[in-house]
Amino acid sequence: MARPNPFFKQLRKSYIFTQIEERVARLGTPPRPLINLGVGDIALPLAPTLAHAIEEATEEMTKKRRGYGPSEGYLFLKEAIQKAEYPGFSPEEIFISDGTNTDASSIHEIFAPDCRVAVFDPSYPAYLDSAIMAGKEVVLLPCKEEEGFCPKPPQTPVDLVYLCTPCNPTGVALNRAQLTEWVEWARKVGAVLAIDNVYNCFVTSKDVPGSIYEIEGADEVAIEMRSFSKAAGFTGLRCAYMVIPKKLMLGGSSAHALWYRRVQAKTNGVAYPIQRGAAAFFTPEGQKETRAQIEIYKSAARVLRSDLGLEFFGGIDAPYIWLKIPDPFTAWEFFDFLLHECQLIAIPGEGFGQAGSGYMRFSCFNTVENAAEATKRIAHALRARL
Amino acid sequence: MARPNPFFKQLRKSYIFTQIEERVARLGTPPRPLINLGVGDIALPLAPTLAHAIEEATEEMTKKRRGYGPSEGYLFLKEAIQKAEYPGFSPEEIFISDGTNTDASSIHEIFAPDCRVAVFDPSYPAYLDSAIMAGKEVVLLPCKEEEGFCPKPPQTPVDLVYLCTPCNPTGVALNRAQLTEWVEWARKVGAVLAIDNVYNCFVTSKDVPGSIYEIEGADEVAIEMRSFSKAAGFTGLRCAYMVIPKKLMLGGSSAHALWYRRVQAKTNGVAYPIQRGAAAFFTPEGQKETRAQIEIYKSAARVLRSDLGLEFFGGIDAPYIWLKIPDPFTAWEFFDFLLHECQLIAIPGEGFGQAGSGYMRFSCFNTVENAAEATKRIAHALRARL
Repeated sequence: MARPNPFFKQLRKSYIFTQIEERVARLGTPPRPLINLGVGDIALPLAPTLAHAIEEATEEMTKKRRGYGPSEGYLFLKEAIQKAEYPGFSPEEIFISDGTNTDASSIHEIFAPDCRVAVFDPSYPAYLDSAIMAGKEVVLLPCKEEEGFCPKPPQTPVDLVYLCTPCNPTGVALNRAQLTEWVEWARKVGAVLAIDNVYNCFVTSKDVPGSIYEIEGADEVAIEMRSFSKAAGFTGLRCAYMVIPKKLMLGGSSAHALWYRRVQAKTNGVAYPIQRGAAAFFTPEGQKETRAQIEIYKSAARVLRSDLGLEFFGGIDAPYIWLKIPDPFTAWEFFDFLLHECQLIAIPGEGFGQAGSGYMRFSCFNTVENAAEATKRIAHALRARL
Repeated sequence: MARPNPFFKQLRKSYIFTQIEERVARLGTPPRPLINLGVGDIALPLAPTLAHAIEEATEEMTKKRRGYGPSEGYLFLKEAIQKAEYPGFSPEEIFISDGTNTDASSIHEIFAPDCRVAVFDPSYPAYLDSAIMAGKEVVLLPCKEEEGFCPKPPQTPVDLVYLCTPCNPTGVALNRAQLTEWVEWARKVGAVLAIDNVYNCFVTSKDVPGSIYEIEGADEVAIEMRSFSKAAGFTGLRCAYMVIPKKLMLGGSSAHALWYRRVQAKTNGVAYPIQRGAAAFFTPEGQKETRAQIEIYKSAARVLRSDLGLEFFGGIDAPYIWLKIPDPFTAWEFFDFLLHECQLIAIPGEGFGQAGSGYMRFSCFNTVENAAEATKRIAHALRARL
């Protein structure tokens, strides 16, 4: 008699997002256009150079048969990534996938079933949800304001830690000293760090390493995940990559060999034209066009940071601002205040975990004009209110 | 201390395919062009109507921002599939994914960890490999010649059965009576049937249902997986779909709700242009172009069937012919005979499981000319040999 996976019952209900939808729906037609600072998604159209590469590759497929590609990704894309971003590795150590969400949700499959997983609280939901679904024991690491929202390595034994840096949702990034502490800890206790590094293109601070592999010894303990989603405006196109260094061992087994076997068995890779589009990201034109888009988001972040008039964290090395909900508001009171008085949407921090309560995530994936208009509305509404 | 997933050690080594590669490499330059009847992959270029839909959708993305799509697939594609193929279901019951390989490898995640999985022997490797990796107990159901390579429901208790029909690699399809027996058995014992139906476009025999849902009561026990890979020549583009009827319950839980939750947590859907290309498959022009390709493969199958001059099975409702290796050859002797005397590649059946030994899989994904040439070469070489 087939029975359901019992661990699904332990999943958090995503009532926050349902609540948001319901509250926005109840708003009806707002007095002025709604500005959505809630979504962690691109705000601009696809860069033309990348689009043309996809179109050309598609056209090419009508002329010449092209069947299954390599499950681990085409060499042309792996080489382009390796040359541009991972010169210290071989293209073989890079795996192409349809998203960091997929990679982060699946990487625990190569670990022993009873491995313990540590996750920041708050965090991007996929780490926790996928670990729960797989019946893993999970250790939550609260992001505390007094620690700059960067938790320290846990005292309790864990085998796999998700580190999202630059971090969604808190908008802060781990600096060199903090990353070094994590790498040294991982080497000491034999843990693996899964670095969700998809916001690397937003890193600005000098003391924030662009990649975990700038830390000595990281290639023995860290897997790094990046994506074309934000850097190349690819959210709707699904292409990401993950570095699994050949030096990384799980007990006596190569993590690389295990993941390779997993990918061979369970996937058939990413669409050929999409991989061609992703490779075009590394051309001079592709870089120019996509960099211009990132600069817009960074400018929007700068505007929000300088004119919000409220206490917040992050927004320098990541496209998120972690706003401290001002007294005397509760999260939902502040949400409603923003919605009704400012026609703005932002996400209550508890949507990303219990330790996120008291904060609100503002996304900077928007135009500079909208960011400026948002800060004006908030300032005006706060003056009227206080 | 992080340890590896111990179940990976139980995976079969895919030495057969390495062996094939090595033997082909040793051949050097053959005296005439090699004909590859080994691959289960399309042999023709992409249909222009489908390509143009992909190109247009990509171009559209340069004009208007399109971010993350729905994890479960765009409604336009789900509706197109529902109207064309599943009129008895709602679009909600259809999930879009990047491949039946992915779907088949992941569906067990919504079942209890100790569920027992049954797999045909021989079969497409993903069912068995993914079940082994997840530590599931697996029951093998040998495909016996005296049963027409269609195993009967097992006596031992199992919870999830993979039924590949039309079948890769044996090339046979379960008829109405056989499918009815499976559905009735599943209803009686409370098992779930995962139907890998990706070769449905090859079904020719009148008594072979195109879909499991032609069998009464199947919507309470069966999940059906189909793909654009073969029907639309999409192997390199990655798009498939799976029907999970809302009536299908696992214990007290809706399989549909569980899978929906899983998909929301662990994936971000399929690229927008690829889904537009897949939707174009259902247009009159898309149907005409792709149908013409399938007819070529079916003609190649007809040529092989009528002129092989050796005992075989299948090839009527599926693009595979299951050849009985003639006396006095062993599998590798016959492989080498085909390679050296005929410059042909085919796959020893044991590559798909132990019970496949004594047979050889011939793929019909080829041109009619190549199929005709292949039969001529075999006939000639056999005459010279015998």
